[in-house]
Amino acid sequence: MFQQHGVRSLRSFRPLHQRPPPDLRDLTPLAPRPAPPAWPPRSEYGQYDIPTADVMINFKVGQPAESMLPLDEIRKAAAHKFAETDQLFLQYGFISGYPRFRRSLATFLSEWYKAPVEADNLFVTNGVTGGLGLYCMVYATAGETVFAEEPTYFLAKAIFADFGLNVVQIPMDPDGINIEALEAQLEAGNIPKFLYTIPTAHNPTGRTMSVAKRAKLVALGAQYGFHIIADEVYQLLTFPGVEAPPPLFTFDDTEDGVVISLGSFSKILAPALRLGWMEANPKILKKIFDCGTLDSSGGINPVIQGIVHSAIDLGIQAEYLTKTKQTLSDRYSALAAALTEHLPAGTTFEVPEGGYFVLVQLPEGTDSVAFNNFCQETDKKVMFLPGASFGASYGNFLRLSFSYYNAADMAVGAERLGKAITAFLSQ
Amino acid sequence: MFQQHGVRSLRSFRPLHQRPPPDLRDLTPLAPRPAPPAWPPRSEYGQYDIPTADVMINFKVGQPAESMLPLDEIRKAAAHKFAETDQLFLQYGFISGYPRFRRSLATFLSEWYKAPVEADNLFVTNGVTGGLGLYCMVYATAGETVFAEEPTYFLAKAIFADFGLNVVQIPMDPDGINIEALEAQLEAGNIPKFLYTIPTAHNPTGRTMSVAKRAKLVALGAQYGFHIIADEVYQLLTFPGVEAPPPLFTFDDTEDGVVISLGSFSKILAPALRLGWMEANPKILKKIFDCGTLDSSGGINPVIQGIVHSAIDLGIQAEYLTKTKQTLSDRYSALAAALTEHLPAGTTFEVPEGGYFVLVQLPEGTDSVAFNNFCQETDKKVMFLPGASFGASYGNFLRLSFSYYNAADMAVGAERLGKAITAFLSQ
Repeated sequence: MFQQHGVRSLRSFRPLHQRPPPDLRDLTPLAPRPAPPAWPPRSEYGQYDIPTADVMINFKVGQPAESMLPLDEIRKAAAHKFAETDQLFLQYGFISGYPRFRRSLATFLSEWYKAPVEADNLFVTNGVTGGLGLYCMVYATAGETVFAEEPTYFLAKAIFADFGLNVVQIPMDPDGINIEALEAQLEAGNIPKFLYTIPTAHNPTGRTMSVAKRAKLVALGAQYGFHIIADEVYQLLTFPGVEAPPPLFTFDDTEDGVVISLGSFSKILAPALRLGWMEANPKILKKIFDCGTLDSSGGINPVIQGIVHSAIDLGIQAEYLTKTKQTLSDRYSALAAALTEHLPAGTTFEVPEGGYFVLVQLPEGTDSVAFNNFCQETDKKVMFLPGASFGASYGNFLRLSFSYYNAADMAVGAERLGKAITAFLSQ
Repeated sequence: MFQQHGVRSLRSFRPLHQRPPPDLRDLTPLAPRPAPPAWPPRSEYGQYDIPTADVMINFKVGQPAESMLPLDEIRKAAAHKFAETDQLFLQYGFISGYPRFRRSLATFLSEWYKAPVEADNLFVTNGVTGGLGLYCMVYATAGETVFAEEPTYFLAKAIFADFGLNVVQIPMDPDGINIEALEAQLEAGNIPKFLYTIPTAHNPTGRTMSVAKRAKLVALGAQYGFHIIADEVYQLLTFPGVEAPPPLFTFDDTEDGVVISLGSFSKILAPALRLGWMEANPKILKKIFDCGTLDSSGGINPVIQGIVHSAIDLGIQAEYLTKTKQTLSDRYSALAAALTEHLPAGTTFEVPEGGYFVLVQLPEGTDSVAFNNFCQETDKKVMFLPGASFGASYGNFLRLSFSYYNAADMAVGAERLGKAITAFLSQ
């Protein structure tokens, strides 16, 4: 049904602060290029120097807007934590995270998940990326095969490549992974080292896996003996009024554990904290606890654990999360309205359950990599993540983020995008 | 010359906060066991619940003393940094560390190294452990062989095992790695993926590699095409009056880069910060910059970078480092005096150039693993790291840390150790 294209990873940001410009891996050559960002950069911080809306609406940016970053709140939490007088706060930390923090986190998650979370099943990480890295280091070996949904988070594929793992993608339905396609692989003897899934408000589709599929997926993991890594970064970021099913770990009633649920404070508090958690059976966590790397370093980010601990206990985390869910929902609504107004006939988009992204489908046979190149070459001042990045069958799709730009800017971007599609298709 | 023993890793601490007691990997069974620590633990923080001196002097503990942890100073640095009003401080960070922080770090290191350091050669890590992990993930593949000194940091071997690497150890001389032994391996065609060395105030010997050997080692890396990872965690921790040779990266004048110098704030500021740096040719750093993991997570620990940035700029780091060098020197002197007083004839120790550790040599043929078991079985209330952990030829050696206990406690420990040696040898 879909056209097949080679996968290309486009890195469309200009990393900050480097002169001459850094190597932009896989960047499609552009001529003419957009105006370079001002020097010195607007801020000394940030991963990328993201252009202002007049220069470019870069819908690829999967980061919170600057205005969403809770600096006042984190300042309060840090001041609260640094009232601490126990100097051991600065010592090498307990490997799975300090117990009072994990208990506080468990209480917070139990309330928001509406499902009980035990502190002993939690293991503090450097965010979802850190959790994936730790898991892969301890459990996976280069050359092994892992499964992921098609489409999937494009950088998860890059992380698995860092560990030399081969990724096989399994198609998705509107209610999550296609179980028949997965079973066909398993019955054919193709058992992955693990399966990576984004069960709730999936990136890039915005879809949420049904309860029935969650149960079935966990049963298949138990039956065939593979772990399931659930990237639940959007579990708490469904839109207000949208009830997420329980996290995947809730379905794991196996003796030895099958599911590793990964969570993160990056998108529910602040990315720069580099803090997140795993939730899994202690038997799974034990091998991670015992690794040489953590024996050497002690626990992950104890000082930041402390600051986030205060953010939770002071109610800052809950208040910020409530506000953020509304902000993201409002931004999605604004983008959806603008897309509805500006996208030409034949171009559609999917309604997400939450998260950061909208998946747009161009007419069948359209190559969104070529379209993105066209946009840059003809200075359409709009950019996005082409579908080939997240799945070979998604060549005529593109991903738009609604987290970064405000409503007015997104309306400008949607209009630019609509006009660009019309121009590209009429070539 | 030395007796050969199988390598055993002893984990002699009781990790904090777990009931029932956690699995203590490789712990030699002990009967009777020391009294369990009080519950609840004395502190909610820390990697291990380290017994008080009346119960045990655990010379294995390679951590700063509680009294050395600069909580007031870090509180000041955090308060200074959180006066920040740029919300992008909380965004995903620039992958190699934010430029102003790296420039500040470069200035600090240039002064203390007495050798110029360029911000563009620096890459922020989660400490030496984090740097090793990042390097191994990007550059090494399971099954490859790496070289290390014999003896070496016992947990570096465990970290390499996490990545499936085989470690071959090369003997050391008083002035560093035995170049002839290394050349013999290389000439025989045994080229490692990389060589791991601790050039200054080496763990566990306290030795410092000579300038001539530094130059020769780098030349061999360039000639045979292998990287040299220099763990320079003690480079700034030589005793007052002991001038360290320039860091290993200083000797790297190759076009593409051979040396990766790893530094850390764990032992010059505070372990819980989980912050350190790599210094290397940008060509080496580029592959790390480009990995999927960091593309996904952004830079490492931006908030902690900010706090340490303030600690450097406010002079807190320099003041603390000066004080810490003196503290460690004083503690070493106290331990050396006590060892001189209490060790029986035939047992010697090596005078370190700095760092955290003293290497003690028991009479030839003595098995320090058996001796440690003896100490626990007969309740000698003293513990140490047996030499087999850091090198197969070091079966009659043991490592003592002087960072953790104060002078009075170390004197007690040295007396216990001396008596225990006499008792063990007279069995």
